[in-house]
Amino acid sequence: MAKQISELKLGILGGGQLGRMLIQQAINYNVTTLVLDPDPDAPCKHISNYFENGSITDFDTVYNFGKKADIITIEIEKVNIEALEQLEKEGKKVFPQSRVIRLIQDKGVQKQFFKENDIPTSPFQIVNTKEDMENCNIPFPYILKLRKDGYDGKGVMKINSAADLDKAFDAPCIVEKLVDFEKEVAVIVARNANGDVKTFPMVEMEFNPEANLVEFLISPSTFAESLQQKAENIAKNIASAMNITGILAVEMFVCRDGELLVNEVAPRPHNSGHQTIEGNYVSQFEQHLRSIYNLPLGNTGSITNAIMINLLGEKGFDGVAKYENLEKVLSIDGIYVHLYGKKYTKPFRKMGHVTIVDIDREKAIEKARFVQKTLKVIA
Amino acid sequence: MAKQISELKLGILGGGQLGRMLIQQAINYNVTTLVLDPDPDAPCKHISNYFENGSITDFDTVYNFGKKADIITIEIEKVNIEALEQLEKEGKKVFPQSRVIRLIQDKGVQKQFFKENDIPTSPFQIVNTKEDMENCNIPFPYILKLRKDGYDGKGVMKINSAADLDKAFDAPCIVEKLVDFEKEVAVIVARNANGDVKTFPMVEMEFNPEANLVEFLISPSTFAESLQQKAENIAKNIASAMNITGILAVEMFVCRDGELLVNEVAPRPHNSGHQTIEGNYVSQFEQHLRSIYNLPLGNTGSITNAIMINLLGEKGFDGVAKYENLEKVLSIDGIYVHLYGKKYTKPFRKMGHVTIVDIDREKAIEKARFVQKTLKVIA
Repeated sequence: MAKQISELKLGILGGGQLGRMLIQQAINYNVTTLVLDPDPDAPCKHISNYFENGSITDFDTVYNFGKKADIITIEIEKVNIEALEQLEKEGKKVFPQSRVIRLIQDKGVQKQFFKENDIPTSPFQIVNTKEDMENCNIPFPYILKLRKDGYDGKGVMKINSAADLDKAFDAPCIVEKLVDFEKEVAVIVARNANGDVKTFPMVEMEFNPEANLVEFLISPSTFAESLQQKAENIAKNIASAMNITGILAVEMFVCRDGELLVNEVAPRPHNSGHQTIEGNYVSQFEQHLRSIYNLPLGNTGSITNAIMINLLGEKGFDGVAKYENLEKVLSIDGIYVHLYGKKYTKPFRKMGHVTIVDIDREKAIEKARFVQKTLKVIA
Repeated sequence: MAKQISELKLGILGGGQLGRMLIQQAINYNVTTLVLDPDPDAPCKHISNYFENGSITDFDTVYNFGKKADIITIEIEKVNIEALEQLEKEGKKVFPQSRVIRLIQDKGVQKQFFKENDIPTSPFQIVNTKEDMENCNIPFPYILKLRKDGYDGKGVMKINSAADLDKAFDAPCIVEKLVDFEKEVAVIVARNANGDVKTFPMVEMEFNPEANLVEFLISPSTFAESLQQKAENIAKNIASAMNITGILAVEMFVCRDGELLVNEVAPRPHNSGHQTIEGNYVSQFEQHLRSIYNLPLGNTGSITNAIMINLLGEKGFDGVAKYENLEKVLSIDGIYVHLYGKKYTKPFRKMGHVTIVDIDREKAIEKARFVQKTLKVIA
C-alpha cells in the first residue's frame, strides 16, 4: 500500500485565513499540519499540530521548517524560494513547485509567460525607471503594477497622464494597457501530480473600488456557456503550461467585445474560491489537498447559487474586533459565516467572509446585499 | 452590544470525534475551545485552543477545568454531574444542563421521564437483582439494559429465556419489552435558550448486528410524511419537556403497526446526525453551537440525499490505522471522508465516517454500498 495521507506531514508557509480553511479540511484526512507564520497569533496557531512563529521569507527559517514536513505548500506567494529549491533538491515535495512560485512572484515574468504560451492577456511593457514609463508604448491612462510583493490591491495604481508619474512606484514595474472590461471573473483550476486537471465553474466578482479588494462574488456565472467554457480552457492551458501541482486561481477580464484577458494568477487557494466550501460539491481547499497528495480530483460542480462577501474591517475602527449584527444575519436561511480568528481589526482588513446560498439567484443576491449592509466588523 | 461569541470560551467535556467535528464548526465563529479528555492523544488535541489530559468523571478535574470556560458542553454523557452542578451554581452556563445529563445518564430515570411525559416508549421495568428479572412482568424474550454507562451497543443484551439469566448483567438494569420494529429512525432536535425549537428531518438507520453500532444511515427518510411529522413532534415534545438547551438526538423504533416508540435519547451531537454536515443546510454541530450560544437556529432542511457510513476498525486488526482503498473511494463523485484522528484501530472502533450524497437516492445507496465494501480500516 502507498504511503497514507496521515503519514505525510504537511508544512504550510503562512498561517492566515487560507491556511486556516485548508486545515479545517485537512482535519478530515488526519493530516498532520505544520505552520510557519511571522505573526505569533496567526489564525492557524491553535488548529495546527505544530505552529512556528517565524519569517517565511528567511532562507534558514523556511529551510529548517520545511525539513520537518514531507509536503510543503503555501498560502501566500511571498516566501523564500531559494529555501524551497533546496528542499526540493533534498527530496521534499513542494507544491506548488518553487519554479511556479518564482514565476508568479514576479508580475513581469508572469506576463512574459502568458505571452510565450499564447495565453490572452492585456498588452504590457516592463519598466524599471520613470524614464521608461514616460517613453513606454502603452498610452495613458494605464495601470502600473509593482513586479513584486503586490497583494490585495496593494502595489497597483492608475497613471492617468505624465503628471501622475511623480507619485509612481520607484521600483521595477509593469505597465499594462487599461482594459475596458465588463466584469472581472475567475476560474480556479486544480492539477494533481498525475496530471489530471479540473476547473471550478467560472465566478463573477465585484471589487470594492476604495480598497481594490474582492467584495462580492457570485457563483455560478450567468455569462454564455461558450464564454465560460473558454475561460475554463484558458485556466486549464495555464495549469498545463506551468505543469503546476496544486490549485491555481486565474483572474480574468471579460472585455466589452467579449474577449477574455488573463489579469493575474495565484498558485494557492484564493479569495475567489471561498464560496466553493458550501456552493460546490468539493471545495477549493479539499481540491488543493487532493492535488498535492495526488488523489483523484473531486467534483467541482455547483450545488446551488452561492454568493461570497468579504467581511472587511470597517473604516474608522482599529482594535479588538467585534461583529455587529451577527445574530440578525444568522436568522436568515442559507448563511454561512467564516471568521478568521483575527483578534484585531483595522480598516479593510480581511476579517472573515460570509457565503449565502439560495436556489433562487435573485433571492441569494438580495440576502447578500442585506448581509453586506448589516454585518459589520467594528472595534 | 451583547457579549461576542468569541468572548465566551467553550469548555468541552470529551475530546473524541464529536468534539472534533464541533470544533471544526466552532472555528468559523472564532470560538476559543477548551477540551478535557482522559486520552492524551484525543482527536481534539491539536485543534483546540487548550487541551487538558484528565478525567471527565472526577469532580475536581471537571470543576477546575470548567472554571476556565464560560459555557460548558459535553460530547459524552458519562461526566461528573456534581461538578457541573457546582459550576452552574457559580454562574457558568452548562448546556445541556446538568439535570438533563443526570436524567439521561440513568436509563431507568430516562424511561420514567418518558412515561411521565406521555412520550411513547416500550413497556419496561426497573430491576436490581436476578430475582427481579425472573419475576418481572415483561415476558421473555426481552432486552436487558444497564441503567448506567452503556454506550455504542455496550451494556445491552437480549435475554431469550430464564436460562440466559446466568450471564445477565449483575447491576441495576431496565428490562424492556422486545419491540417488533420495521426500522430504527432518529430525529435530532435543537432548542436554544430562547426556547426556539427546530428538528432535522427524520433519518433511517441500519445497525451492524454484531457490533450493535449504526453502520448505515440514510437521509431523508422515505416514510410517509405523516409519520415523519409525528416523529419530529415527539422529538420536540421531549426537548420542551426537558427544557434542554442544546441538541438532543432521539432514536425511535417504527413498529410494524406504524407506531413510533422512543428508544433512547442523547443530549449532544450524535452519530445519527453526521450526514447533516453535507446533507443539510445547517449541520448538527453548527446547530448545537447556535443553541448553546443562544443564536437563531439554522435551516435544517435536506439539500439532497445523504448516506452516512461509519468506518469501523476491521475485525482482526489492532495497531496503527491504515485506510485501505481511500483513493478508489475518492474517485467517486459526492464522497466526503471524515477521519477522526485516531492513531490506533481495533475491531469495531469508530475511526471515521463517510457521507455520500447524490440527487438520485438509488445511486446514493449504490455508491454507499461500494464505499462500505471498499474502504477498510486495517493495521
